[in-house]
Amino acid sequence: MMKPNATLSLSLEGLGEASTICALATAPGGALGIIRVSGSRALEIVNQITAADVNTFSPNSAHFVRLTAKNAKFDETSNIIDEAMITVFRAPHSYTGEDAVEISCHGSRYILNKVLELLMHNGCRMAEPGEFTKRAFLNGKLDLSQAEAVADLIASTNKATHQLAMSQLRGSVSSELTRLREQLLKLTSLMELELDFSDHEDLEFADRTELSTLANKIDNHITHLAHSFETGQAIKQGIPVAIVGKTNVGKSTLLNRLLKDDRAIVSDVHGTTRDTIEDTIDIQGVTFRFIDTAGIRQTTDRVEKIGIERTFSAIDKARIILWVIDAEPAAKEFDDIIQHTENKRLIIVKNKVDKSNFALLSTVNFPIISISAKQGTIIPQLEQAIYDAADIPTLTDTDVIITNARHYDALLRARQSLSHVLDGLRSGLSGDLLSEDLRDVLSILSEITGGQITTNEVLGNIFKNFCVGK
Amino acid sequence: MMKPNATLSLSLEGLGEASTICALATAPGGALGIIRVSGSRALEIVNQITAADVNTFSPNSAHFVRLTAKNAKFDETSNIIDEAMITVFRAPHSYTGEDAVEISCHGSRYILNKVLELLMHNGCRMAEPGEFTKRAFLNGKLDLSQAEAVADLIASTNKATHQLAMSQLRGSVSSELTRLREQLLKLTSLMELELDFSDHEDLEFADRTELSTLANKIDNHITHLAHSFETGQAIKQGIPVAIVGKTNVGKSTLLNRLLKDDRAIVSDVHGTTRDTIEDTIDIQGVTFRFIDTAGIRQTTDRVEKIGIERTFSAIDKARIILWVIDAEPAAKEFDDIIQHTENKRLIIVKNKVDKSNFALLSTVNFPIISISAKQGTIIPQLEQAIYDAADIPTLTDTDVIITNARHYDALLRARQSLSHVLDGLRSGLSGDLLSEDLRDVLSILSEITGGQITTNEVLGNIFKNFCVGK
Repeated sequence: MMKPNATLSLSLEGLGEASTICALATAPGGALGIIRVSGSRALEIVNQITAADVNTFSPNSAHFVRLTAKNAKFDETSNIIDEAMITVFRAPHSYTGEDAVEISCHGSRYILNKVLELLMHNGCRMAEPGEFTKRAFLNGKLDLSQAEAVADLIASTNKATHQLAMSQLRGSVSSELTRLREQLLKLTSLMELELDFSDHEDLEFADRTELSTLANKIDNHITHLAHSFETGQAIKQGIPVAIVGKTNVGKSTLLNRLLKDDRAIVSDVHGTTRDTIEDTIDIQGVTFRFIDTAGIRQTTDRVEKIGIERTFSAIDKARIILWVIDAEPAAKEFDDIIQHTENKRLIIVKNKVDKSNFALLSTVNFPIISISAKQGTIIPQLEQAIYDAADIPTLTDTDVIITNARHYDALLRARQSLSHVLDGLRSGLSGDLLSEDLRDVLSILSEITGGQITTNEVLGNIFKNFCVGK
Repeated sequence: MMKPNATLSLSLEGLGEASTICALATAPGGALGIIRVSGSRALEIVNQITAADVNTFSPNSAHFVRLTAKNAKFDETSNIIDEAMITVFRAPHSYTGEDAVEISCHGSRYILNKVLELLMHNGCRMAEPGEFTKRAFLNGKLDLSQAEAVADLIASTNKATHQLAMSQLRGSVSSELTRLREQLLKLTSLMELELDFSDHEDLEFADRTELSTLANKIDNHITHLAHSFETGQAIKQGIPVAIVGKTNVGKSTLLNRLLKDDRAIVSDVHGTTRDTIEDTIDIQGVTFRFIDTAGIRQTTDRVEKIGIERTFSAIDKARIILWVIDAEPAAKEFDDIIQHTENKRLIIVKNKVDKSNFALLSTVNFPIISISAKQGTIIPQLEQAIYDAADIPTLTDTDVIITNARHYDALLRARQSLSHVLDGLRSGLSGDLLSEDLRDVLSILSEITGGQITTNEVLGNIFKNFCVGK
């Protein structure tokens, strides 16, 4: 277990140390509902609404208890709000690290509201979004990147997003930052060694080349992490796939086939699709965001023209391009497409095509899949090609992937400060100035795990998007 | 704890004794989700998806555990599905009376589906609606009326429905039936005493008058219970309140005021409301179902005529009638209304009326409330009058109220059989024939608590309306 965070004393002031919080932790409805209570008065307050004395309950044990408005002037029968299971957790052995109680009652809205009402009547206040996890962070049960992973985990909808969140919750980002920190501390100590002995001109403890090599290694490490954000974002938001091609080659039919839905209007009329249409499907646990686009052709129709402009903009945003053709492409179309494929994966989709080879296409090295969108044949092979093109790190990949924009921002700023160190090493800047920049890098990186977070405002921004009850 | 039900051996065949069931017990979404597992293989199966050995867990204790697909060929990290709290319950000390496990995981749909999938992969099957409670019944943890109360409790939306369900769950109906049963057994034994000694013509152990008195007492008891069904239904479905009166007296405005909503179209035009409009509000924890009706007047408009017919039909179904007037009512209107108020509570609502007394109204003894529907004045007093008119048993009332149509049906049939006993006693029928009818009464009444339920079909009908996971 981690030590309580440095920010604890400061932030508990903002929270009001005495406040004990409660919230419904499950969605309303259902057979059961869980109400969570956490804070120094948790047991005392829950005791006001239970027939038995929860102080006598052994911690972590489920006890069958009647919930009752002890102080209310009802008769014995109507007094009973529910028959519930109560589990008491004693600080620090709880999720939040505080005294905590979980009440598992029947999922009636009336009962759940009544229990929350009575808890508040007896001194609880409703928890803010993410406040249980925020307290867990403040009490050193999780670092900040792990706390953020909790929200991602709850929001995860497929294998890939689940895996990223779980890996972050289990400390992958934190460990990576620990490794970076060790390298940075080594660099700092070498630098300070040089500093300490800088008066002795005859001594040269720290070879500047060695320092540069180490700094460059760290820079590569940070850059690599920052680059992973693109993949992380793609997995989190869905990997953008643009479906492009001339008018009437069957792009919308293909989209509908992939979505197994009639999302796009399909007709024989050239230029039917004008808006870009977006929708997502999961392929092998990864979300792909398909963008159907207006067919590319010379047109005088103003609306269609805008549509075609948007097509090229969609191509720019996509990671994968499905270029649908129904005949040998003209040189102009070929060039238009190829010049937009830098840093992207292109898949050529031959629809309604009998001929197996085209001269132009044989000059490039892109996967070519033949399908019949209308009959839905070969769609599984196309899905596989799309999945492969996404180049998702495999499940056994131990690479750390950054998924959080706050982490990405910190990495970019850390790299910026590190660049001053690299410049300084090259230009022979004095060790004490370099040390200062290095301390900046360390400080910025520690923001990610929360070591340097000092304001409740920053915490508030992080936790405001959590659900209540977590 | 009750003994296992007589039906156990028969019904477990239908269930398949070996089957271990699982289900999500909370609503999907939310920070947490609870998955329940119950059956003889519960621990063995859960053990297949946990990093630790759940067999070593002390019962009723929450254990922090990594959920993992042990058999799957993933690497260590991606293997982890969630970090969860697991509580093991050992038969018979569980809700179902079987070995059971509750898994409290993060509320991600992906995680919840994955856990259920893995449980099923390892030998669980998805629970049917209400199957956990059905097993609790079959294992003698609850009688049938209590099991039914669980569904009512979960569905309860206000104080009154909650109170009825909680009282039934706590055994109020069961206790009442025990009392009835005791009286019936006394009657039977007296009858059989007569039977045993009927050869001795000189002996008269059981005085037929005494038997009649006891039988009549039981009949009253059953009739009283059956009558309570009307109140029970009213509370469960909402107490029907018809708003009636001439056209354009402000009925719809009053409805909107009561509903705090613009439910009904309001206009100056006579006959604006043609459909009967229904909506509910809670007054002091009881649901009232308001029915706005077409104004009563002579009309040639065919649609409006149908509306007016429906008005009288709405009056017939209502328990409470709000008669809105804006001037002294004509004798014809007065008679029309009064003749429909038998067995109903009438409240006269004077809207937009300055005059305080009308001659006709002073001849009847109904509450009269003056309001201004448009300005919303005096609505609280009107709500109080409506609540009083509903004549809901107070919270301290220990009367048992029947809320379940199945119970009501059994009570009616029991009364029917008992009437044969009463007739027989009057006509001097022989004791052995009377005994047979008495056994019928006992048998029918025991259907309510489930002593005589023998078919899975009957059980299926009872539990099919439960939610899955309970």
